[in-house]
Amino acid sequence: MLELQRRIREQGTTAPGGVIRVDSFLNHQIDPLLADRIAGEFARRFSDIRVTRVLTIEASGIAFAVLVALKIGVPLVFAKKGRSRSLGDDAVYTASVRSFTRGDEFTVSVARKYISKDDSVLIIDDFLAMGEAAQGLVDIVRQSGANVGGVGIVIEKGFQPGGRKLRNQGVRVESLAVVSRITDQGDIVFRDNSTID
Amino acid sequence: MLELQRRIREQGTTAPGGVIRVDSFLNHQIDPLLADRIAGEFARRFSDIRVTRVLTIEASGIAFAVLVALKIGVPLVFAKKGRSRSLGDDAVYTASVRSFTRGDEFTVSVARKYISKDDSVLIIDDFLAMGEAAQGLVDIVRQSGANVGGVGIVIEKGFQPGGRKLRNQGVRVESLAVVSRITDQGDIVFRDNSTID
Repeated sequence: MLELQRRIREQGTTAPGGVIRVDSFLNHQIDPLLADRIAGEFARRFSDIRVTRVLTIEASGIAFAVLVALKIGVPLVFAKKGRSRSLGDDAVYTASVRSFTRGDEFTVSVARKYISKDDSVLIIDDFLAMGEAAQGLVDIVRQSGANVGGVGIVIEKGFQPGGRKLRNQGVRVESLAVVSRITDQGDIVFRDNSTID
Repeated sequence: MLELQRRIREQGTTAPGGVIRVDSFLNHQIDPLLADRIAGEFARRFSDIRVTRVLTIEASGIAFAVLVALKIGVPLVFAKKGRSRSLGDDAVYTASVRSFTRGDEFTVSVARKYISKDDSVLIIDDFLAMGEAAQGLVDIVRQSGANVGGVGIVIEKGFQPGGRKLRNQGVRVESLAVVSRITDQGDIVFRDNSTID
């Protein structure tokens, strides 16, 4: 998605260790018009599959996921970080997710009643790097017996293994901007195939 | 907002201690069509004021806030729970928020560069009960020198003091459904003036 790549290049900043900051328009302040076009692009790319639920994880995936769910006309479910106290343990699917940014591990939970084996689930998230969060969501969908329709990612760090790990499992991953590398000068280089809109 | 009250009455559940659960359509699974109409109602109610930023707090306020921001055509900023490691302490506004549900206290942060004294901020959140989260957001807007245009709440627990505390400070609070009490049978009773759509 060329508009997204342009915004990342112009307004994103980088830091050592492969860090890409898009706080100004994507995950702290959000440009809702861009978010809406991002959602439209996900809806277009996954228009060939059946989707009965959109699934994301709190917090920064929610803005994109609700707009995708609105366009497709299906419910959104967002996985909660931590075990939900208000539901019994047998009432939730859980997965364990390592956070490389924060250096810890946390549990994500989804109430069982909101994903059933008849569902076909589209997973949406803002970033894919090591792939831990997306893998946790895929695991939850598999626990439910539902179909993993696909994974839609706003920014994939192509130099980290998350995308490859998911695709190697046969999961369809559509990333709107794939960063192949960050130069020593801090410039962001996109993978060629993601520059074709 | 009558549609919202009907959904709360039909699909919400209650528990002792004034707990209202709306997991099935509002804050774990979200009906995006209802969320969009909720956002439209906020945009309508606040159409008489200048709004340059929508502000919410992660996580469950984001879905409504991004839809409001999209309708008004201004950026959304969502406050992060915890201190952001990626920003220096002097780069953020912070407020301390007590959580009565969880029995702890946490810090909410907003990067200073995303709210300035020239802004007029519309605060959006899903629930207003003790008012701690909304008060934290109001405090952050005041730290920035910006105008608090108003606070839009999906469900206000009118039997808890948050709404009164904010209104006593001269803050305009618009709640789409105000629950005045929960009966001993667990029925949800709405405040009269909120039944007029």
